[in-house]
Amino acid sequence: MHDDNVAGRARVVDTPELTAYYAELARHEAGALWTVANDIEPWEPRSHAVPMHWSYEALRPLVLKSLELVKPEDAGRRVVMLTNPKRRDVSAAVGWLYTGIQVMKPGEAASAHRHMASALRFIIEGSGAYTIVDGERLTLRANDFVITPNGTWHEHGNDGGHSPCIWQDGLDIPLINALEANFYQVHPDLHQEVARPVNASNFKYGNIALKPLEPDWSKSYSPLLKFTWESTYEALRLYATATEGSPFDGLVMEYINPLTGGAVMPTMGAQMQMLRAGEATRAHRHTGNVIYHVAKGRGHSIIGGQRFDWKEHDIFCVPSWAWHEHANASSSDDACLFSFNDFPVMNSLAIYREEAYVPNDGHQII
Amino acid sequence: MHDDNVAGRARVVDTPELTAYYAELARHEAGALWTVANDIEPWEPRSHAVPMHWSYEALRPLVLKSLELVKPEDAGRRVVMLTNPKRRDVSAAVGWLYTGIQVMKPGEAASAHRHMASALRFIIEGSGAYTIVDGERLTLRANDFVITPNGTWHEHGNDGGHSPCIWQDGLDIPLINALEANFYQVHPDLHQEVARPVNASNFKYGNIALKPLEPDWSKSYSPLLKFTWESTYEALRLYATATEGSPFDGLVMEYINPLTGGAVMPTMGAQMQMLRAGEATRAHRHTGNVIYHVAKGRGHSIIGGQRFDWKEHDIFCVPSWAWHEHANASSSDDACLFSFNDFPVMNSLAIYREEAYVPNDGHQII
Amino acid sequence: MHDDNVAGRARVVDTPELTAYYAELARHEAGALWTVANDIEPWEPRSHAVPMHWSYEALRPLVLKSLELVKPEDAGRRVVMLTNPKRRDVSAAVGWLYTGIQVMKPGEAASAHRHMASALRFIIEGSGAYTIVDGERLTLRANDFVITPNGTWHEHGNDGGHSPCIWQDGLDIPLINALEANFYQVHPDLHQEVARPVNASNFKYGNIALKPLEPDWSKSYSPLLKFTWESTYEALRLYATATEGSPFDGLVMEYINPLTGGAVMPTMGAQMQMLRAGEATRAHRHTGNVIYHVAKGRGHSIIGGQRFDWKEHDIFCVPSWAWHEHANASSSDDACLFSFNDFPVMNSLAIYREEAYVPNDGHQII
Amino acid sequence: MHDDNVAGRARVVDTPELTAYYAELARHEAGALWTVANDIEPWEPRSHAVPMHWSYEALRPLVLKSLELVKPEDAGRRVVMLTNPKRRDVSAAVGWLYTGIQVMKPGEAASAHRHMASALRFIIEGSGAYTIVDGERLTLRANDFVITPNGTWHEHGNDGGHSPCIWQDGLDIPLINALEANFYQVHPDLHQEVARPVNASNFKYGNIALKPLEPDWSKSYSPLLKFTWESTYEALRLYATATEGSPFDGLVMEYINPLTGGAVMPTMGAQMQMLRAGEATRAHRHTGNVIYHVAKGRGHSIIGGQRFDWKEHDIFCVPSWAWHEHANASSSDDACLFSFNDFPVMNSLAIYREEAYVPNDGHQII
Repeated sequence: MHDDNVAGRARVVDTPELTAYYAELARHEAGALWTVANDIEPWEPRSHAVPMHWSYEALRPLVLKSLELVKPEDAGRRVVMLTNPKRRDVSAAVGWLYTGIQVMKPGEAASAHRHMASALRFIIEGSGAYTIVDGERLTLRANDFVITPNGTWHEHGNDGGHSPCIWQDGLDIPLINALEANFYQVHPDLHQEVARPVNASNFKYGNIALKPLEPDWSKSYSPLLKFTWESTYEALRLYATATEGSPFDGLVMEYINPLTGGAVMPTMGAQMQMLRAGEATRAHRHTGNVIYHVAKGRGHSIIGGQRFDWKEHDIFCVPSWAWHEHANASSSDDACLFSFNDFPVMNSLAIYREEAYVPNDGHQII
Repeated sequence: MHDDNVAGRARVVDTPELTAYYAELARHEAGALWTVANDIEPWEPRSHAVPMHWSYEALRPLVLKSLELVKPEDAGRRVVMLTNPKRRDVSAAVGWLYTGIQVMKPGEAASAHRHMASALRFIIEGSGAYTIVDGERLTLRANDFVITPNGTWHEHGNDGGHSPCIWQDGLDIPLINALEANFYQVHPDLHQEVARPVNASNFKYGNIALKPLEPDWSKSYSPLLKFTWESTYEALRLYATATEGSPFDGLVMEYINPLTGGAVMPTMGAQMQMLRAGEATRAHRHTGNVIYHVAKGRGHSIIGGQRFDWKEHDIFCVPSWAWHEHANASSSDDACLFSFNDFPVMNSLAIYREEAYVPNDGHQII
Repeated sequence: MHDDNVAGRARVVDTPELTAYYAELARHEAGALWTVANDIEPWEPRSHAVPMHWSYEALRPLVLKSLELVKPEDAGRRVVMLTNPKRRDVSAAVGWLYTGIQVMKPGEAASAHRHMASALRFIIEGSGAYTIVDGERLTLRANDFVITPNGTWHEHGNDGGHSPCIWQDGLDIPLINALEANFYQVHPDLHQEVARPVNASNFKYGNIALKPLEPDWSKSYSPLLKFTWESTYEALRLYATATEGSPFDGLVMEYINPLTGGAVMPTMGAQMQMLRAGEATRAHRHTGNVIYHVAKGRGHSIIGGQRFDWKEHDIFCVPSWAWHEHANASSSDDACLFSFNDFPVMNSLAIYREEAYVPNDGHQII
Repeated sequence: MHDDNVAGRARVVDTPELTAYYAELARHEAGALWTVANDIEPWEPRSHAVPMHWSYEALRPLVLKSLELVKPEDAGRRVVMLTNPKRRDVSAAVGWLYTGIQVMKPGEAASAHRHMASALRFIIEGSGAYTIVDGERLTLRANDFVITPNGTWHEHGNDGGHSPCIWQDGLDIPLINALEANFYQVHPDLHQEVARPVNASNFKYGNIALKPLEPDWSKSYSPLLKFTWESTYEALRLYATATEGSPFDGLVMEYINPLTGGAVMPTMGAQMQMLRAGEATRAHRHTGNVIYHVAKGRGHSIIGGQRFDWKEHDIFCVPSWAWHEHANASSSDDACLFSFNDFPVMNSLAIYREEAYVPNDGHQII
């Protein structure tokens, strides 16, 4: 769409003299900007990833198979990670975001560790999952969302009776590696002592418009660690009565740090959105990357002109600056999409931009 | 306790020469600082108010009597205001805080107005009370707490079938007058058009750790206007499982602006605290003034060495820097105290200070 | 201008029945709101003060006379305070702001103290004035501005050889007393040890757009304590080349906390403004109170319809919501007005409002 | 130093069964986390760059040669960029930071453009350099530092009489590309209209602890665009009298946004540090990357155990988590290092960490 043969862009033609000059520069660990300028200053964002969709139905057997193939004490964690074909080198699903599907047998408990990367989990199956974060045990059920922010000791387990627990992990590992700031520590005792009541942070910080009088919290992430599906779905149901919603996202709410109203972690935000019965949104695009998890229902999304049909527990992603729109396949039931993103990074660095798709009533042509 | 006859305090003895000098200064609208210095620079805060307790049982008949005595179109609002014996000149109950008990007959609706003062209401009786704030109608029930912040158009009514509605008003009128910044306007149409769904702000902002993705709110007060008793009592009940509470206040939570985690309004904060069965707190004191409303139960408070017994819907106040402690009279049920205060003023101006009462295991001797 | 005989205002006519009712309410420390409502909810701000002007020429001999009349060890400080005729009860010059003129003989040194009130000084005469704030000695010259914020140990002295030092003090004592939060302490040793280089904070924080890499400062007030006339006048001179100025204030700049860009203290702000040769501003009014000190030049201000002529070192005040405009009497030289105010209070509490005077080209008729 | 053969790390041994499983996963665009876990979760940060030093003496002739080789209308800008041997793929000198040396003949003027990347310049030689940023012309002299933040229209020129102008450019282009958020626009008229007085922002915002009363600025970067060498060197000279300095950096100050006290731009910060005569600092390391420019003097730095000698206008870099220490070679004169960094990114994302080098009195062994 954009022509580089214009004033203000680099248009230098190679000559023998220049070739010699470039060689001389290279000997000094230098180069000529004009040889790469148009490439490193693109007219608009170029994503390094492609839109992707992963079928839970297809992946589930492979996830379960890992139960037989590896032991937790060898693998650390039994995770099938989802890698974008263009981002395999950095183990990312899209942008600098990692995601994977983890599984634990009843009775298993992984050892505790911490890292500079931040993590989140969205629960898929099983009733006995728990996470211990900095000495607090959190019990988890399907569609619950939990954070294990940067620097927190954390460990996961399954003490349910019968079935394996499966959940989706999301981490900023690729970003923190790219920013050359990752650290990793195994807990000296391999497991933490549980120092507070189970789910204590929910009782302290998971209340409606009330906080402990003297919170004593100065960390950069939310003191509320677990966000239950029950309260989240109820919130969307109520929100539906008071808003027309977004033309691009339907009814969409952001999980927040209840002490600041801001994103749950400095590097990753999370949202839950409801597509009402029959709803099909209009397309828009923005900087920042998003990984979606279908929490409820069936439908499809059109991403970068490509259609992806999805149903419960499928995972898909939208790369930076790709047009995208969503549609609920049901004319009677709502569909809900959980998603996590790197918008806090975009916002902190003042590089978030957004654009609506105007032609064709806002719908991409496939 | 403190002696002014020390170095660093004013100790000038009057002489005829000085008397003449003071008269000369007065002719220039001036004075000698040393004649008032010790008085205007006290060793510690001097409250202009005394501790007070108002019995709801005693006041209720007087409140109801106003229904016969005045018409709303003449009185504006039918309110029995509670005035501190030392603060009658500024119509304050304590500090610069005003409070009163308002009543409306079924079917009545007061006209809309707005002012620079901020207001709050705590509902006592009746089922049909409502408030309309900037075009949003809020339905109110006993022990609900609602704010009508500075500059908002607001109006109150009672559309319940049978009984009068009674509530407590709290305002910063004395403060805003003292700061010479009050404005008042009657709504040009006397009543507002209701522009949004009933209780819309609760559906948008009254959710657990979730906010609308793009809140579009930049005001200095909470976008959530109503805080229900149901969610508040539930919060305290849960909080009880995760904390030992404060030695001075039992289980105490602050109502917050869910978009910032801060106080609900820039001039007044509000709290709800639970005294567990049998709980008696230790005494402390702080700058800032508090007006309490007994939301549930029976007990007593010792304020400035004076005991006040209270039961449901009684109102009492704690002046700045007065020692105070609370006790629940029941050994089986909890008691709940709603309160509002001027702590946001103390905090914004960096003049909040607090001190624990050490002698006698923290209990004042009456 | 406003009529109280309208819907939405209180218009209850006294009857014997009501009189009896009011007496009954009074016995319960209560009252009827409608008897005071119109008074405590004025249509617009009512200042408790009148505009005032104090001539330095007239006051200077009285200030100097105090040198003979009282000893510092008796008076604490030799200060002629300026009191508004309507605010003598609270020792305020306007609003809740105190001001006075202090004098010290060569060789004198007052003892150190601290209080919850915040203070500032603007130097008038003499070359040996110094202030020690929390262990740092600051040397002061004419038109320098220095702060001694709430809670800091501070003491003043004059170690110049020959002449007395005179300066203007500004404090929020009336406000802090009104808010019932004042504390006072005499330094246990009467004098502080000087722990850092003279004027150290100026060398650390008084630089153009540079700060120490790790400031280690979390207090609510500016780490820079002294603002010199030299850098202030130079700033205005430069600013003049880059702005047309304000129609109401000419070239006006605010002294700031260099670590935040905000007001120098949480309760008082300060400004310096330049009226260019021949400049006469238009009138406006705002909530908040201001005390001016003529730093340079001659001119007049019209405040609330009253003209006040001023020259160097005169002091005058503008009460809340009073129309005011300023004029430089010289057609060749600039005039400079230092001022301090309670705008930080207005801003923190969200009650700052401002209005331009429209009629007569923006000029009041005297 | 760290052993991966421990509990909590991945230690799965390949088997034929696993190999088949991995192939199956790959067919689903998935993988097994444990095959890469230890690699993507390193024990501590791994920089993608090596320490580098570029000699200005060596590069200057190459920079000047570009004047003959390419015309600005073809090259866009005549820049010799400095590329880290390990970061050539992203045109970075270290981390995600780009730097280069640009040259313009007298009389030349490059066309205006803007981009999402942010830029800064540090002037090396010549007297006629200027930059126009959003309609404001800034004149530049040696060692001046100027920013052209994200989204601002900017253009450079040289209207000095005789000699070329040379400066160092610093940009976050690699970061913004990595974050897939770059945009680029050529100005529709190729050049901006100059709408304000020359250097206007310096006269408005480059003053000591004073700001315009109503700044009307809500952007994420500093309204002050140019930071002169004159005021910067003076600041360091004064700062020297009031601090002992940092053991790791000598006298070090950060350029700030005067309206917030924060970093000059959301993605890049800048500092100037003075090494006093004879000063040799101790080593430390931190996350975040730094590019240095020798503003004054001679000395050496030891980075990652490797010694680099430097003199005026040399450029060198410190990769994330590399130990580094600096020494001034002169026993009589100070040396000054300008530097820019990605610390604002580290801080916004809560991933800044720092560590002192303890052995050998804090000095690395080469």
